[in-house]
Order: sequence, then structure tokens, then C-alpha cells
Amino acid sequence: MTTHQVLIAGHWRDADASRTFQAQDPSSGATLAPRFPTSRWSDCSAALDAATAAFEALRTVTPDAIADFLDGYAARIEAHSDAICAAAHAETALPLAPRLSAGELPRTTGQLRQAAAAARSSDWSRPVIDTAANIRTQFSGVGPVAVFGPNNFPLAFGSVSGGDFAAAIAAGNPVLAKAHPLHPETTRLLAREALGAALDAGLPAATVQLIYDLEYADGERLVQDPRLAAVAFTGSKRGGLALKRAADAAGTAIYLELGSVNPVAVLPGALSERGGEIATELAGSCLMGTGQFCTNPGLVLLEQGADADAFVAALTEAFEAAPNGTLFSAAGREGLAAQVNALRSAGAEVLAGGEPVEGAAACYANTVLRAEGAAFLANPGQLQTEAFGNATLVVVTESVTQTVEVIRSLEGNLTGCIYSAKDGGDDLAYRSIEPPLRQRVGRLLNDQMPTGVAVSPAMNHGGPFPATAHPGFSAVGVPGSMGRFAMLQCYDQVRPDRLPEGLRDENPRQTWRCIDGRWTQDSLS
Amino acid sequence: MTTHQVLIAGHWRDADASRTFQAQDPSSGATLAPRFPTSRWSDCSAALDAATAAFEALRTVTPDAIADFLDGYAARIEAHSDAICAAAHAETALPLAPRLSAGELPRTTGQLRQAAAAARSSDWSRPVIDTAANIRTQFSGVGPVAVFGPNNFPLAFGSVSGGDFAAAIAAGNPVLAKAHPLHPETTRLLAREALGAALDAGLPAATVQLIYDLEYADGERLVQDPRLAAVAFTGSKRGGLALKRAADAAGTAIYLELGSVNPVAVLPGALSERGGEIATELAGSCLMGTGQFCTNPGLVLLEQGADADAFVAALTEAFEAAPNGTLFSAAGREGLAAQVNALRSAGAEVLAGGEPVEGAAACYANTVLRAEGAAFLANPGQLQTEAFGNATLVVVTESVTQTVEVIRSLEGNLTGCIYSAKDGGDDLAYRSIEPPLRQRVGRLLNDQMPTGVAVSPAMNHGGPFPATAHPGFSAVGVPGSMGRFAMLQCYDQVRPDRLPEGLRDENPRQTWRCIDGRWTQDSLS
Repeated sequence: MTTHQVLIAGHWRDADASRTFQAQDPSSGATLAPRFPTSRWSDCSAALDAATAAFEALRTVTPDAIADFLDGYAARIEAHSDAICAAAHAETALPLAPRLSAGELPRTTGQLRQAAAAARSSDWSRPVIDTAANIRTQFSGVGPVAVFGPNNFPLAFGSVSGGDFAAAIAAGNPVLAKAHPLHPETTRLLAREALGAALDAGLPAATVQLIYDLEYADGERLVQDPRLAAVAFTGSKRGGLALKRAADAAGTAIYLELGSVNPVAVLPGALSERGGEIATELAGSCLMGTGQFCTNPGLVLLEQGADADAFVAALTEAFEAAPNGTLFSAAGREGLAAQVNALRSAGAEVLAGGEPVEGAAACYANTVLRAEGAAFLANPGQLQTEAFGNATLVVVTESVTQTVEVIRSLEGNLTGCIYSAKDGGDDLAYRSIEPPLRQRVGRLLNDQMPTGVAVSPAMNHGGPFPATAHPGFSAVGVPGSMGRFAMLQCYDQVRPDRLPEGLRDENPRQTWRCIDGRWTQDSLS
Repeated sequence: MTTHQVLIAGHWRDADASRTFQAQDPSSGATLAPRFPTSRWSDCSAALDAATAAFEALRTVTPDAIADFLDGYAARIEAHSDAICAAAHAETALPLAPRLSAGELPRTTGQLRQAAAAARSSDWSRPVIDTAANIRTQFSGVGPVAVFGPNNFPLAFGSVSGGDFAAAIAAGNPVLAKAHPLHPETTRLLAREALGAALDAGLPAATVQLIYDLEYADGERLVQDPRLAAVAFTGSKRGGLALKRAADAAGTAIYLELGSVNPVAVLPGALSERGGEIATELAGSCLMGTGQFCTNPGLVLLEQGADADAFVAALTEAFEAAPNGTLFSAAGREGLAAQVNALRSAGAEVLAGGEPVEGAAACYANTVLRAEGAAFLANPGQLQTEAFGNATLVVVTESVTQTVEVIRSLEGNLTGCIYSAKDGGDDLAYRSIEPPLRQRVGRLLNDQMPTGVAVSPAMNHGGPFPATAHPGFSAVGVPGSMGRFAMLQCYDQVRPDRLPEGLRDENPRQTWRCIDGRWTQDSLS
């Protein structure tokens, strides 16, 4: 069996491998045939050299060429969707349809096309012109970007195809992708199309490079290398914070998406009015994709009483009635078991599930846990443990006041949801709960579960630390997500013919620019 | 002699002091009478509690109240300008006029008024609305901000009056100011007016708090405290990077402005055409404020030849002819001496100055150093030592190619300047030099020295690490500088009457909002 090659400087070539690995089919535990290399540092260094040259070349290509690449890549993914989805299904056990073929794949190509449109309009560069002072500023690409993709969206957040990738490229940066080792074949198939699209569009071949796996130490060395400008990492808190430490020490910009428990508060009026309906909706959101979403609702806040008890009973029943989904790996099942045990040992009671499902598939029983508000407040750190998978903790508080206290004890999260009565009966409670929750989450929802993350310019898929590393940026939605991979470049008295296209008097792309305080698509006359 | 009080929770009160200190008049070395406390941790902790409450209260006040505060504070500073400038003059030896009274003070009040206007319009919050998906997002205040002001602009960058302060407040955050210990009395006088203005405007009294000095360990503890949301630090690389390490570990957003050498390349055609004129301009820029500017041109790049030699001779003559200014402190003089010695020991030759001026005033002789391009490339780290004061290094290269190599060896800088011939004779060289310089600086200038930093929305007073901690933000100019103290807050399906004012359908402030991809001041109909 040969080992697959890495993509460096436009060529598929043998890795400088310290070892090899194979993915598993989580639904059977079977080892999949393809063999992939764990790269040594020399692969990273070669890729960084190629990325440095590619970045310089990208600064001279038109936004249209970058957009053509993104559009062309989207078309190629569609043309090869069967093979790509089949590989992703085999490596992740995510359902072929609708999840992969009708959900994640169109989301992925849609993101790429939105990024293409953003590159074409250049709106993302947010030009600001002060005509009196003749100072002109815009955002511009920052340099080579390393993307570490997560396990849970092999396409839409994939290192060589997802939102980080699209944003970094659209802002004019080459990407050095580090595949997630749970789905290397999927990533390889995507990278093949990315390279083809880059060559078609006349971009430097090293605009897209792929390494499958690295030793931890080399990952840390990579994010500290002066040839690298920025890093995007989606994954576990432990891995992400280790990379952050390394990047911070070197001054490399790093954006993390480390998941969160995504608190959902169901206020008393809503419980009374439509508790059963909300419990059904919650169970669906919790168990979708076997709960392996960064926006999975992992912490439910209820105020004690008969309605809360009925809600918990309905939720428990729904969890028990639903099939146990397959997790991404046996290791993921072990991780989930450890997380559930951490919650349990901090005082949470298991109402459903709470143990692995025996068998070859990586399954864990759908799990509902319950803790009282006072218990949560006694140990808020451990009871905020994210159980990554099909497990959710319900916290039952004594009062709105205690709910507020629980919220105040929370770390930064991606999302926060409040369900309230339609008749306004919860409005007073809402006004107590909203301010502390608002400051702790990136996205606040009303009467809706957090698992849907629309690809919208108004989306914020981000939040305060430790959900992410900076509360001012979103990982989903263009043009916002592109700002992570950009630097502010000011031109002070620079001669007109030396200005970049977007800052000249003429505005042929009709880019939205802020000129003397007014946003306009007009040229400067 | 009594010790001055700190300002915590709206009250001037005795510090929990570990010791006291006094400022010096750098022009005479005389110790100034007022005595100030170095605070223990309990002062910080009390201020953080008060700031936490103030931030919650600030979320409920109107933008107009914040704007009224900023405007009122500006008026109070003007009403007390004589006393404030006199204190600043005594503590820093900066000339009363024009520098303090006609330069820095109007700049300070102008910044506060620009920040007031930004608060009133709310344009800085950059609302983005997706009507189809009903998702609405804006930037909002991030929480209590600690501002560590620098030694070199007691008013315009002062911890309780400068650009960071104005930006943090205008974005709705309380500021915990840490005075620079070289000008505590100036800071105290300013804080007195700030408190008065806050009370006049009906803001929480703890919107502005002041501590004069801290032990290093408590500074690090402060930036790691979960009650603190963000930090702005302007000052030395050593102090700033230590704070950054601490803040990064806790996930606190930190913005640094650590100065830089601000390369100025004078291309051969410009040297030949107007070398004498540029040398005069350069000497003025280098020696202004005794060279104690973050944008001071500390590294001049010339290509070898007779014109370069004449330029260096003219520069040296101008440095020798100019009076030696007074530095901010005897310690500053020692620091400059050490930095010049570091350059010298790395191979730079002293052409003028190079030693302290004997006497009671903190003076160092105006200093020109010279190194060859090859020598620079052999030791680029040490030859990029920032000499903070009236000292500048000229690097003479063999060729444009070598100039490019020198530029490629540079760390991130705030500014970079290129002087080129008016007749286009340097255009080829410009095209080689500009790309690598562009990526290493926040602001690129043509035919102009970097020391003027216009307070403009198009300004970028920022740059790649280690000049700052993030290449996407400016410390000067609103609304850009406010983005550092803001978090992205998304409202997904939130009921209309629960939306913040700036995201409702009506737009009474005529805030510029991006609605479905179009920037408009209109309401949503």
C-alpha cells in the first residue's frame, strides 16, 4: 500500500514522514485502506517558503483571478460531489443525505461563491479616504495563513475547503492546510480540486498547500514561524490553547474556535405555554449530527417547578426514544465518556444514557444530566465542561436571580438562547437575564435553537474567550470573517499612480468606500 | 507633605500604598513636591469592582450622555489648560508653547470631540442587517478597559485623556487609567476634570478611575483579572511584551503600541534632486520633541555614492548645529545611551554625538550613526534597536537589491517612508522596495516624514508585530481606534422591541448601516 502524497509548492510529493496513519470508519471501526503521512518539519518549512513566494505573487493578481479560483473550485467540488461525499461519509459516518450531499456540500460551495463575490467587489477591504488630508486606508491580505480544520465539518469547515479557507484566500492569502487526521481522504480529494482550480485561474500553485498531520511540537513551531502571518484553528480547547500560547509568544495572529456549551434559558412563561414543543425542538438540536456541533446546546437553564419537571421528563423521553448516533471516532466516544463523568463527579445526575453503547460503532447513549442551580454555582468550572456529542446538562435554578448568577459564572460562549412566553409574561425575567448573557456570547437568539449558523454577512460565529481568541471577529459569513486575515494599510500622501486599485479616485468595481465619513460606491471626482 | 489620592469608584481616596514616589523636572533634575502612591493590589481590585458596575450602568445610558461627557471634558480641559500645561511642562520639560498649549492640548480636546461625535452617530458600531434571515449584528462595548499611558504625550496619549481613553469611553467602556509615573500631577489634574465631566453628564462616577503606579506583578495580575476586558498599553517593548504575555494567557484582549524604528528610504534620484532639502526635513523630524516620538525616523536607508555621502554630511551638520533637547528623565538618558551603545557595538559608527551631555538637565548629544548595508544584514536584530530619543542610524547600502534585503530583515513598524525623484527616475526602485516595505508597516508615506500623525478616520497608527499586537487596528483616529474596545454582538431572531437602538428598523441617529449589502443612513421600511 502506498502512502498518499502531500501538496507542497504546487506538487503532490512524498512527505518527509515520521510515520503514517489510516482513518477509520466510525460506524464499523474498520480501518480504511488509504495510508497518510505525518509530516516532519521539513515539509512545513518547504510549504512556508512556497507560501511566502505565493503571497508576493498574489499581491499582483487581480481580485477577479482570486474570485475565478473560488468560483471554479466550487464548480469542481460539485462535479466531484459523489466521490467527495462518499469519502466524507466513510471517514466520519455522517449521513450521505441529507447531511453531506444536500447540506454541507452546498453550504461549502455557497461559501466559496460568497467569498468570490466579496473578492470581486472588494467591499471587504473597507477603504476609508480622507480627501482633505489625502490619507487613504484599506484592509489588505496579511500573508500566509495556516488553517487547522476540525473533525466535525469535513467540507464546510474543512482546512482546504471551509469558511476559514475561503476567507483567507478571498483576502489574498495563500493557505497552508493541516487536514484533520479523522478525514484525510476527504481533504485530499478536495485539495486536488483546489489545485486544479488555482491553476485554471492562473493563481500561484502554492496558493493551496496540504499537509495531513504533524507532530504537536511542529505545529507549535509552525505557528511561531516568521513566514506565517496568521492561524485559524477550530477544535478542542486543549489543542487550541496550546497553539495560542505558541502563536502569542511569536506575535502571530491566531483565531480559535474552541466550542462552547451554548446556554439555552427557557423562561417560566415559555415552559408553561409550550414546554413540550420546546423540549422536542431542543432534543432535535442536541442530537443533530450526534451533538457534534460547536453550537450544540449543552447547558439548559430552567426555573424549578412542575413545568420544569415536565420539560425535563419530556426531554429525557425524547433522548431515550431517539436512535443513538455514531460519533466521529472511538477516541471521541472515550472523550465524551470522560466529559460526562466529569459532569457527574461535579454533582450532575444522569437522567438518561450516561454510558457507551457496546459494539463496533462509536456510539454513546443519548445522555441527559441534571444539576441544581446551587450545585452549579458551587462548581461552575467543572459543570461547564463541554460534552462534545449527544449529551446535555439541564440546570434547574431556584429563581430568576439564581439563573442570573449561573449566567454570570459562565465563560465566553458562541451562542446564548432565551425562550420566553409569547404573551410578554417573561419580559421582566428577560430583562434580568439578557444583559449578563449578552456580554458572554457572540450570538443571542430568541425562541430558536443555536445549531443553525446561517452563512450571512450579519452572522457572528464567534464570541468572548475562551470560545474564541478575539471577541471582534466571526468565523462564518463574508466579508466579516475575512477581516481576520487582513492588515490595515494606510497610504499617507502616496502618489496617485502608486495607490492600490481600491484607493484610487476611480472606483470601477463600485466598492463601498467611506469617503469623508460617507459610504459610497461612487468614484472620487 | 501629604500624598495624593487615587480615584476609585468616584471618590478621591487614600491609596493602599506600598510606597510613594515623586516626579522630577527633567530640565533641572529637581524633585517636584507632590508625592504619589504606588498602589497595592487592593486598589486595583476595588477599581475593578467599581468598573464592573459602571460598565453595566453604561450599557443603559444613551450615546448622547457619553458624547456629552466627552465634549464636556474637552471644554473643562480648555478651561484649565494653563494649569494642565504648566504641570506637564514641569514634569516632562516639553515646551509650553507651541508643543503643549498649541499642539498637544488642542489635539487632545479635538480627539475627545471626535470621539463624542462618533458616539453620537454610532457609526463606529457598524451595524450589519440581513433582512431576509432577520439577523442583525453590531459592535458594542467590551467591558472595563485598562489604559497604560506612555511617557511621551502626557495629554494626547495620556491614560486618562488620550486617544485610547477617548476610544474606550466612546465605545461605552469604563477606563481604569494607570498614570505614567513621569507625569502623575498632569494626570491627576486631568482626572479631576474627567470626573467632574462624568458627573455633569450623568455617567457612572467609576467611568473614569485613576491609579498612579503599580508593582509590575500587580500590573500583570490586573491584565489577567476576569473583571477586565481589554488593555491598551503604549510604551517600551520590554514592559509591553511582559503585559502581553500575561494578558494572552488569560485571553484578555491587549493592544500594544511599542514604537518602532520607522524606516525612511531616500532613493538615488531624490538624493540627487533634493538631498539637502530632505536632510533638513529629516533632521527636523528626528529632533522634534528630542526624538521621543513613536514615529521618530530612526533608520534611514540610502544607496551609496557621492549624493549619499553629501546627504549624511548635511544630516550630521544639522544634528550638530541643533540644540540638544531635554529628554524625559535621567533614566531616559541612560536608556538612550545604552541603545546607542548597542548600535555601536553591532558595528554602527558614530558620526555625531554619541554621548550624554554633562549637567543637571537630562540631555544627550544629538546623534547620527552610520552602518553599511552588509553590516546591517549581518546583525539585523541588534541594528534595529530603537534609540528612543535624538539619535538616528543611517544605513548605506550597495544597491537597490541590498536595500530590499535590509527591508526584508526588518520587524513590523508603525511607518515606512519612501522619498523618490519627482521626475519618475526612481520609479523602478520604488516598485522593488514598496512591496516588502508595505507588508512591514502600518502607514506608508511618500515624500513626507512620519512624525505627523493626523487624527483622521483614515489614519493607521498601528502596524505588524512587534510594533503593535494586532495588525488590524489603529490607535489613532475614530472610529477605527474604537474597534479595539468592542465586541461583535449578533441578534438572531431577537424580538424587535428587544433589539438595541442601533439595530431596530427605525434609524433616528442616521447611523451608517450595511443593510443587505448596501450602506445607508435610512430606516428600514
